[in-house]
Amino acid sequence: VSAGPLSAVPLLDHHCHGVVQRNLTEEEFEGYATESDWGPAPGTKVLDSPFGVAMMRICGPVLDLHRLTSPEDYLGRRQELGWQEVTRRLLAASGTTEYLVETGFPAPAIASPGQMGQLSGHPARRVVRLETIAELVAPATSPAGFVADFEAELDRQLRDAVGVKTVAAYRCGLDLTERPPSDAEVERAAAGWLRTASQTSRYRIADPTLISRLVWCGVERRTVVQVHVGFGDADVRLDLADPSRLTPFLRATRTSGARIALLHCYPFVRQAGILAHLFPHVWFDVSCLSHYAGPSAPTLIRQAMETAPFGKLLYASDAYALAEQYLVSATLWRRGLGALLEEWVRDGWLAPGQADRYAAMIGAGNAQNLYRGDPR
Amino acid sequence: VSAGPLSAVPLLDHHCHGVVQRNLTEEEFEGYATESDWGPAPGTKVLDSPFGVAMMRICGPVLDLHRLTSPEDYLGRRQELGWQEVTRRLLAASGTTEYLVETGFPAPAIASPGQMGQLSGHPARRVVRLETIAELVAPATSPAGFVADFEAELDRQLRDAVGVKTVAAYRCGLDLTERPPSDAEVERAAAGWLRTASQTSRYRIADPTLISRLVWCGVERRTVVQVHVGFGDADVRLDLADPSRLTPFLRATRTSGARIALLHCYPFVRQAGILAHLFPHVWFDVSCLSHYAGPSAPTLIRQAMETAPFGKLLYASDAYALAEQYLVSATLWRRGLGALLEEWVRDGWLAPGQADRYAAMIGAGNAQNLYRGDPR
Amino acid sequence: VSAGPLSAVPLLDHHCHGVVQRNLTEEEFEGYATESDWGPAPGTKVLDSPFGVAMMRICGPVLDLHRLTSPEDYLGRRQELGWQEVTRRLLAASGTTEYLVETGFPAPAIASPGQMGQLSGHPARRVVRLETIAELVAPATSPAGFVADFEAELDRQLRDAVGVKTVAAYRCGLDLTERPPSDAEVERAAAGWLRTASQTSRYRIADPTLISRLVWCGVERRTVVQVHVGFGDADVRLDLADPSRLTPFLRATRTSGARIALLHCYPFVRQAGILAHLFPHVWFDVSCLSHYAGPSAPTLIRQAMETAPFGKLLYASDAYALAEQYLVSATLWRRGLGALLEEWVRDGWLAPGQADRYAAMIGAGNAQNLYRGDPR
Repeated sequence: VSAGPLSAVPLLDHHCHGVVQRNLTEEEFEGYATESDWGPAPGTKVLDSPFGVAMMRICGPVLDLHRLTSPEDYLGRRQELGWQEVTRRLLAASGTTEYLVETGFPAPAIASPGQMGQLSGHPARRVVRLETIAELVAPATSPAGFVADFEAELDRQLRDAVGVKTVAAYRCGLDLTERPPSDAEVERAAAGWLRTASQTSRYRIADPTLISRLVWCGVERRTVVQVHVGFGDADVRLDLADPSRLTPFLRATRTSGARIALLHCYPFVRQAGILAHLFPHVWFDVSCLSHYAGPSAPTLIRQAMETAPFGKLLYASDAYALAEQYLVSATLWRRGLGALLEEWVRDGWLAPGQADRYAAMIGAGNAQNLYRGDPR
Repeated sequence: VSAGPLSAVPLLDHHCHGVVQRNLTEEEFEGYATESDWGPAPGTKVLDSPFGVAMMRICGPVLDLHRLTSPEDYLGRRQELGWQEVTRRLLAASGTTEYLVETGFPAPAIASPGQMGQLSGHPARRVVRLETIAELVAPATSPAGFVADFEAELDRQLRDAVGVKTVAAYRCGLDLTERPPSDAEVERAAAGWLRTASQTSRYRIADPTLISRLVWCGVERRTVVQVHVGFGDADVRLDLADPSRLTPFLRATRTSGARIALLHCYPFVRQAGILAHLFPHVWFDVSCLSHYAGPSAPTLIRQAMETAPFGKLLYASDAYALAEQYLVSATLWRRGLGALLEEWVRDGWLAPGQADRYAAMIGAGNAQNLYRGDPR
Repeated sequence: VSAGPLSAVPLLDHHCHGVVQRNLTEEEFEGYATESDWGPAPGTKVLDSPFGVAMMRICGPVLDLHRLTSPEDYLGRRQELGWQEVTRRLLAASGTTEYLVETGFPAPAIASPGQMGQLSGHPARRVVRLETIAELVAPATSPAGFVADFEAELDRQLRDAVGVKTVAAYRCGLDLTERPPSDAEVERAAAGWLRTASQTSRYRIADPTLISRLVWCGVERRTVVQVHVGFGDADVRLDLADPSRLTPFLRATRTSGARIALLHCYPFVRQAGILAHLFPHVWFDVSCLSHYAGPSAPTLIRQAMETAPFGKLLYASDAYALAEQYLVSATLWRRGLGALLEEWVRDGWLAPGQADRYAAMIGAGNAQNLYRGDPR
């Protein structure tokens, strides 16, 4: 399965995580090949899925296998080559020339941005997760000191990062407040959170007042704020992860200098496109398609192209742990957008050069424009 | 209009109702050819619709008519052959080899599972509706005795059934509780319900506490719980029938031994696919397409194939009353999935044998696996 | 880019606004070429968008340009010809034979229905906006007199109009009440509104009680009530503009004699189709596609054809200010519906004559039936 007409377009992957830097058992591999937190239902297999199908067809040949290889042969060959060689081959085949690596979900053996740079031979820059920073400072802070401690750590981490990400969707949903919660509101909410956390040693932050304040701290730094939208793991309640809920927040931040990047967006791609149409400071990607939609990824790319200005779409893989995910995502994006642009040229909507220009913009140019970081 | 490449795949229809066992007037036929509870708008016709179009093209030739027959000729021929011959021909042409018949909406002349078995010459098993059982025991129960009376009747009916169904979506929406409402909560809610019901002789159950308890009774029996999702008759408020709302309930029931089957799912097919991806105990079908999407059914099948593991999709007709609905549904499913799998084979995603395997799984194998009933 | 097989079908545009009757600067033109209220993001261009692409390809040749003209050349030629000639050519090319012009958003130089009739040479009738009438009477009314004053002005304006429109979606969302708010409730709400309005000289009406009462006044006049649904400018919060929220209101108005026309409906086209399927008094259009979906408009037309009876779909351009929008909308509708109907004929679903009949119904016949105005 080839990458189609856009095979030579360089990609700036504006949202991904690190690969896992060791060999994996079959069970571990399958655990990374789904957003589910649990094993498959009895009588079903994880790789009998859109991702499984796409992964073997796209990655098999890069590992010298027939494209219709079996899962067993694929995993055997993967073991034989070893994770380094597999990673080297798959990242190179993806044509990704820059990675923005979100580091907020650290796990043993997951590559840092620096390691991703070395493994890929391309620049890799860091995006920090607001909630992770809050949870990092929590054990040694106080309700009254929380915001200052959080901001100090955020500023320290931002010296080495190009943006922030929030997983509000996983924690309390996307009803972010129209203005920063006050210090008094935050102190009250932090007192409750820290009390429970210190009793349970579980510092997961989920209070909506606190999350809103974290995001507003990001906004005040006039940086890019990535927002997880829609499909993710089972922590998400989808209806609370509808980006429409961000509307009051988006109105309030329009002239702040911050830019908002909506991530993944499935099944709310149309809602995300509308917000990117309406608000000058909103961009979006359809990275959910990267691993999980497999052969259906083009359908979602088409949705993303329905209403938003073409300068507002971004490429991202949302890859995590498996090197396969970077390549599957990149290939599906190239094929899907390529087929659509070819159709538009054939039907008379675009001149060929215009199609090339839009492909280059969505592949990398828009992200370069967005992350250049000059606030308006 | 033929059934395409999957014409020989046996179907296990995991959610349908019974045919009506008598001849119908034109008005009665049209009443069963829509989910609307009322006659058509002035100047419009019920059969000028996706179902009308699909019904005549697919069923006409089976009744010896030209596929572009008129509604008048179709209904005339139907009358001429008589309902028994029409039913015999259309069910046989559907290639359905097993029926799970939901009996919770009894109406005069609607076939029971036993009668469906005789009419079709294939096994037909029963699914019971929780709300109907509650309404059955209501006139002779008390607030304190309601749960015990309900459970006794449920257990009696389950001796002869393969699962339960809830129409919570029609009654109170899908915000089912994360744990069974307590006996005290149920008694209080039942007191209000039974008081009003005995005064009005209208025993329709709609209280969210009571509905949640009914569903939890189903869960505790470690059986399949079918959940109506999305489009149905005008009792549904669609936004309350979004399966995303089930997320807390799904988290809470994951290890219960019950399995959840989301029915119809239109226009929330993507949300249903995500839930089937995330939760090992969730399956889904797109039975809304059976009669009502007509030529557009393939679009919805494509949505169902976007993210869920292929072991989690089920076939269902949701047919009710009209024998046409079983055949239209089966034909549209065969054509739609067949075209998609052919495309995936042609584009290199699937080996032909793999496509056949997935078709057989979705047509019947997954339902056999699901309804085999061994709780995990 | 031609209009395809339906190029000769007459269109009744049941929802549009007036063209702007003067020449425009480039910035003004771009301001009308987006639903955004603000300029584009740095580094992006308004016309690098689906509308921009469609507009130049469709309208360029009508202004004697190559279809792959540049924005600069297009705007230059537009200036050269002058707005009258541009308007004359583009409206004529659209094949629209009747306009229902909504006049609730008056702006300098925007054509009235009478002017639209003169510019196009075709009948143009008026639709009045409920909220605009309320805001018109507000400065000279009292809380106790508001309803009577509103109704007097509404009746006066309805003498010259074929229906009313509500922008409840922009003001308070679509949770319209199941019955008219009482006089006491309205008086209380009006007191608050008028107090603030007279203090601020800003008479924008947004109170849900007041909006519901306005809509019920429309219902009581047994006319067509157009309801803005979904995508619009940044005043809309999309999740509150989901037409599912209208369900209780639709149940309550079913036998009122009023007919409800859902406008635009993106991204809730499927929800709108379901409501038109269920409720005899509900119609809908997909006018959002007119300017903003560009090459993707056919996707949305396909959604509109999934479940609703074909007698319930309407054509509308939702054009505003730019003559280009009437032609782009009409061309996309002709191409999109034409391609779908051709496909259905080719696949055996429709006889050619039946396809022609459905095209004529959706293009104009359904709207003629709807706006004929005989309440049931």
